[in-house]
Amino acid sequence: MSPDTEMTTSPVLLERDGEIAIVRLHRPDRLNAFTNEMCERLIAAFDETDADDSVRAVVLTGTGRAFCAGADLAAGGETFVLADDPDTGGAPADQGGRASLRIHRSDKPVIAAINGPAAGVGVTMTLPADIRIASDTAKFGFVFTRRGLVPEACSTWFLPRVVGMSTALEWTLGGRMVPAAEALERGLVRELAPADRVLDRAVELARELITGTAPVSVALTRRMMWRMAAAESPEIAHRAESLAIYLRGVSDDVREGVESFLAKRVPQFPDRISGGLPDLFET
Amino acid sequence: MSPDTEMTTSPVLLERDGEIAIVRLHRPDRLNAFTNEMCERLIAAFDETDADDSVRAVVLTGTGRAFCAGADLAAGGETFVLADDPDTGGAPADQGGRASLRIHRSDKPVIAAINGPAAGVGVTMTLPADIRIASDTAKFGFVFTRRGLVPEACSTWFLPRVVGMSTALEWTLGGRMVPAAEALERGLVRELAPADRVLDRAVELARELITGTAPVSVALTRRMMWRMAAAESPEIAHRAESLAIYLRGVSDDVREGVESFLAKRVPQFPDRISGGLPDLFET
Amino acid sequence: MSPDTEMTTSPVLLERDGEIAIVRLHRPDRLNAFTNEMCERLIAAFDETDADDSVRAVVLTGTGRAFCAGADLAAGGETFVLADDPDTGGAPADQGGRASLRIHRSDKPVIAAINGPAAGVGVTMTLPADIRIASDTAKFGFVFTRRGLVPEACSTWFLPRVVGMSTALEWTLGGRMVPAAEALERGLVRELAPADRVLDRAVELARELITGTAPVSVALTRRMMWRMAAAESPEIAHRAESLAIYLRGVSDDVREGVESFLAKRVPQFPDRISGGLPDLFET
Repeated sequence: MSPDTEMTTSPVLLERDGEIAIVRLHRPDRLNAFTNEMCERLIAAFDETDADDSVRAVVLTGTGRAFCAGADLAAGGETFVLADDPDTGGAPADQGGRASLRIHRSDKPVIAAINGPAAGVGVTMTLPADIRIASDTAKFGFVFTRRGLVPEACSTWFLPRVVGMSTALEWTLGGRMVPAAEALERGLVRELAPADRVLDRAVELARELITGTAPVSVALTRRMMWRMAAAESPEIAHRAESLAIYLRGVSDDVREGVESFLAKRVPQFPDRISGGLPDLFET
Repeated sequence: MSPDTEMTTSPVLLERDGEIAIVRLHRPDRLNAFTNEMCERLIAAFDETDADDSVRAVVLTGTGRAFCAGADLAAGGETFVLADDPDTGGAPADQGGRASLRIHRSDKPVIAAINGPAAGVGVTMTLPADIRIASDTAKFGFVFTRRGLVPEACSTWFLPRVVGMSTALEWTLGGRMVPAAEALERGLVRELAPADRVLDRAVELARELITGTAPVSVALTRRMMWRMAAAESPEIAHRAESLAIYLRGVSDDVREGVESFLAKRVPQFPDRISGGLPDLFET
Repeated sequence: MSPDTEMTTSPVLLERDGEIAIVRLHRPDRLNAFTNEMCERLIAAFDETDADDSVRAVVLTGTGRAFCAGADLAAGGETFVLADDPDTGGAPADQGGRASLRIHRSDKPVIAAINGPAAGVGVTMTLPADIRIASDTAKFGFVFTRRGLVPEACSTWFLPRVVGMSTALEWTLGGRMVPAAEALERGLVRELAPADRVLDRAVELARELITGTAPVSVALTRRMMWRMAAAESPEIAHRAESLAIYLRGVSDDVREGVESFLAKRVPQFPDRISGGLPDLFET
């Protein structure tokens, strides 16, 4: 692909399958290697899915045989020589971290459909997803120490929470490629599927999450769970939950949720995320 | 059961089996659905077990075929319309959270014997227990998003610590019923037993915890472990543990513990919880 | 062994196998029971391995049939009567905690090769290691409540992070001996090996961690992962990682890491830990 074509082709595609958005890393001739432009487009895609009430869940996948090979190393040994942050004059924000935080802040559940090998930021960017599934031919490389780098994309925070401390240390200190079966066993991914089935299966799981659930409840639950997983005490959770139950308790959603349950019918939740989400954590 | 009978029958029974107290959710005709009165009685039961040195452990179970069906929905769509807190004029304390915090603060180990289905607060209230076992016919529903609600009873804090972040998100975002086998595999419960054996097995496990252990040590260990599981650094644990070892080191319990071990005899620990527990965390 | 001989034989031996240091608890006639002197020698051994750039990883093991039987109880019921801290007049630092914190602060990865039974501080001191493997004849005793004590050596912080909260509570409240197979299943150890193979296997794993990885990257990763595992939010990790990537990005290590990868040759990382590690957490 010539540079000209590359400039006019977005490295991130946003597709739709009913209420499910599919965000696709799309530089297949480069194994979907991560660039600054991919980062910006990824962030923009999640801005779009969050702003659109008709999107209920997001599937993140890659085009071609790889999920993402990590940072694009076209600049060779200069790849990680970064310009100072123009505002502070110091360290600029890690691009992988910006992508991870955007996924983390999604108001819609995110399912990573890891269709092939994922290395460096290619695997760390999937950690804020709610569910990860992978091709049985995928492999995972937390390769940072092998490049003289360190883990990024907020993976020092997410990885021990996903796979536990012992596995997180083993994988990141040594940086070896982790086969799909080991990723499954250690809990990095929920399940494996044949490469040509991973996306369909992710969409299926997304559909399970959104069927019969209230969009506002799902968004708040996602926020609360991550926030409290790192909170100092259950009393902090008790305060946020008390406020959330109180505010939700008078909503049309809860009336519908209880009445539909008692009537054994499918609920039709009226509240929309664009109607606003309460701030549960500042009180 | 007529309303009159219900008023004179406590929805929580407190029974004894030697040194083990059995706290029983007891509204079998309502699948032990949770009410404000059940919450108050549950809290009172744990006040009682804590105040009584002859109780060494608590088993929490339910009467009948269910453990607890969740909040009683007799008030229909109005169930979660809550009165303002009389003191603050704002959100009242989540009742499930009050129950969970009381179980969390128990000075005696708590084993949940989940004898049948557990949904909503019926499952979240078991998360502060030290050990959970379940009937092989039990199922677990973190159903909050299906009612327009959000997880409560401090479950946003406890659940990721018990089953890990990925499972906590999957279960609470989608709210599907989780079968017993999956609950075992993901670590929500330690083991399964036939429904008619769950309580006996829980009592057996409780007996293992209390045989040959010092009551004050058990109470302090329970406090320390939960507190430090959420502490920022091991240095914080080092300070609390140093103080605890120093204070316990001169106790008659430790003398007895070491001497009985060296003499290969069963220890008889003299210290009682009613004698007071040191504050390990304020220094 | 007479007291005279014991005074002239260090209870901790420091050996070398190429780039791997072997720290050996060495009181085989006492099942390597932990003493104040062992604590000081252990700390000194890790000071030495950290100061020596030619050491890339540390294996911690014991001489003889046990790994470590826990605190030496030669003083009987007086064992845990501790002198006040001379500086503060209050509780002195827990010795096990001092050892654990020193291992935790190691700049080299640490692999515990648990060659036989480990009880009390004998098991808790291994929790800050990055990888634990054990003899299939090992057993593990978090026996504190059975002696009237409480868990120490920062285990109230480390243990729930290694095996999860439910297992941590079960093992420490009851204090029973945990067989090797259960330790493997619950994730306390990564794998089991025959007793006479444990040390060789640990050295093999250590070699995997250090081959092709940059020493400075490994040291920073170890620090970052533990620190962020307990941090309140991913934003905190994002700041530290951004700084680390920025500082590492201009290093000769990263140039070598990327160029060797692109050239498909083994990297030769020039940076040494004695050249200094940046402070990533104070900004």
